[in-house]
Amino acid sequence: MTPEESSVQTLNTVWSMAEMRMIGDGMFPPDIRHLRERIHAWWDWYGEFAVLGDEYERRATEAEAGGDLVTAGEHYWQASICWHFAQFLWFDDPEEKLEGLRRKVELYRRAAPLLKPRSERVEVSFDGTRIPGHLRLPVGVSGRAPLAVLLGGLDSTKEEAHHFENICLNRGLATFSFDGPGQGEYFAQRPLAPDFERYCGAVVDHLVTRPEIDAERIGVVGRSLGGYFAARAAAHDPRLKACVIFGALYDLEHFDRIPPQTQKGFRFATGVADPAQARTAAMERVNLAGLPPRIRQPIYILHGALDALIPPEQAQRLYDEVASEDKTLVVVPDGIHCAHNLYHIYRRPMADWLAARLRS
Amino acid sequence: MTPEESSVQTLNTVWSMAEMRMIGDGMFPPDIRHLRERIHAWWDWYGEFAVLGDEYERRATEAEAGGDLVTAGEHYWQASICWHFAQFLWFDDPEEKLEGLRRKVELYRRAAPLLKPRSERVEVSFDGTRIPGHLRLPVGVSGRAPLAVLLGGLDSTKEEAHHFENICLNRGLATFSFDGPGQGEYFAQRPLAPDFERYCGAVVDHLVTRPEIDAERIGVVGRSLGGYFAARAAAHDPRLKACVIFGALYDLEHFDRIPPQTQKGFRFATGVADPAQARTAAMERVNLAGLPPRIRQPIYILHGALDALIPPEQAQRLYDEVASEDKTLVVVPDGIHCAHNLYHIYRRPMADWLAARLRS
Repeated sequence: MTPEESSVQTLNTVWSMAEMRMIGDGMFPPDIRHLRERIHAWWDWYGEFAVLGDEYERRATEAEAGGDLVTAGEHYWQASICWHFAQFLWFDDPEEKLEGLRRKVELYRRAAPLLKPRSERVEVSFDGTRIPGHLRLPVGVSGRAPLAVLLGGLDSTKEEAHHFENICLNRGLATFSFDGPGQGEYFAQRPLAPDFERYCGAVVDHLVTRPEIDAERIGVVGRSLGGYFAARAAAHDPRLKACVIFGALYDLEHFDRIPPQTQKGFRFATGVADPAQARTAAMERVNLAGLPPRIRQPIYILHGALDALIPPEQAQRLYDEVASEDKTLVVVPDGIHCAHNLYHIYRRPMADWLAARLRS
Repeated sequence: MTPEESSVQTLNTVWSMAEMRMIGDGMFPPDIRHLRERIHAWWDWYGEFAVLGDEYERRATEAEAGGDLVTAGEHYWQASICWHFAQFLWFDDPEEKLEGLRRKVELYRRAAPLLKPRSERVEVSFDGTRIPGHLRLPVGVSGRAPLAVLLGGLDSTKEEAHHFENICLNRGLATFSFDGPGQGEYFAQRPLAPDFERYCGAVVDHLVTRPEIDAERIGVVGRSLGGYFAARAAAHDPRLKACVIFGALYDLEHFDRIPPQTQKGFRFATGVADPAQARTAAMERVNLAGLPPRIRQPIYILHGALDALIPPEQAQRLYDEVASEDKTLVVVPDGIHCAHNLYHIYRRPMADWLAARLRS
């Protein structure tokens, strides 16, 4: 295969996995169409998303200068998500990867106070580091709100949770999205860790002190690798009263059968330079064995039967092993990874399920 | 051309005009992809959209039964918009056309109390008829709210305005969308009329009595044929303090160069059975000549340079002839009709412009 053929193949793999996920997470269909016309091979990816990010930043700045603050907030967020997807699965140039991460954080910061509802940046001190997160509160909820802790997956970050946050917020749930070990801006402080529950625990330690939040009504939602994190957190932390997982990862026994760009993602997240050692590190740090019997909370697991990243058997295994009496497994027959291709149907019921479990 | 070739050609024309418009107005991209796979020729159109509408109705009913009222409202609205597009430009079977109109109204009624913010059905008595409309109020606005009257175009109706309403509501504007002569459910009472301003005036008569609305801060937004209606209304009604038009129709001098399905739409709206007489009636009832010099309100006109339905010269002519001192013309170089293909960029600024003009 020539380098160009290989680059085209990578591009096609990423589009097939991610196109509808990007739209579900807030990219606009006309922009995706435009990008598909402009991007001919994987090596074009970063540059074209970056150009689009710059355009939205310019529009946001103009709107802000003109006093159109709602539009400014929406466009800053759009710029942020463009930079997010610019760096998404982009491991060939570490400087660009870091530039993408930096720009997305910086643009989200400009969006945050203008979003509806606004987003508050919180930094939770833990173990000599600061875990960065976004707290948003539902409009029109009197008293302390129930809250969903949202965990992104591999190469996913808190900024990408915006639309899922909106789904939760519309249903009366506050949201807290954060970057943990190996994710987003926190990657610079900690790579992928075997004990995500400690970081999530520190976040919950903070959340239960917040006067806006009902400490007795906190749940967790994780997608893909974030689902693995959510299961770990639920097994260790009874303060998490319910758990939703979409794209249920049990372990990386199948590492070598995962698409190459995703393998790179796991290796990158470990922070280990040598590819073979990174592979081993990823497999060691991602393994639920022994933990599901400690999960007693109500749990909702959703998995796509066509998932090319996580075999559906892993979702079934998790479902079988958890100790929860209230447990649900939804396997979406025509769903790809996380059922992202059917995000418009399958995301709402997860938020509804969680809101019902956290009803006072 | 065989009937099948002709049916395929019609389908391709409608998709090229309407695909992004449907998404901008709330259809989900995965559903559009699904429909494109299922619909092979125009004659498949109505049936496939109807199936999808039924699926959303079923989901909505289930969500409602389970107490998931936000999801129920969203799905009822989705069912309504599916039925809307089922009957959109569908003139070959009058019974199906009317069934589509009826189902969309009925499903919207079930969505209305569950939408956020909720939608209130209002029926304005006028001239022995009842003009049906939807009033929605912005959240968190203290005192009387400014309001945007939203006018749909040919074969478009109040239910389709939902997402544009949301854009306005997010910017602090209340919205009132209604069906006028020749539109939606009001078509059964009145066909396309030469004096839309009388119907709009009756609506404003009602709105100025509402305690939630600031009678001094009402504007009008019209798209396509609704832009023509908006111009008529602005010329006659000084209570409308600002006017936004996207897709500026001046007259139908170019009737015979309009795509066939749209010609059918104009003929249908007249309620005149004979095609030649209907053509004449449409041309007589759609003509702004003499009125623009009576438009003195601030006006914002947006037009796509690639508009295949309305020559851009018509937008320029309207702009040139209005008496407004505060006037703006935006011609979108790569924009199709109403710049629907770039809805994500060009709709927000119109709402921002209007909100700024209606600021107290």
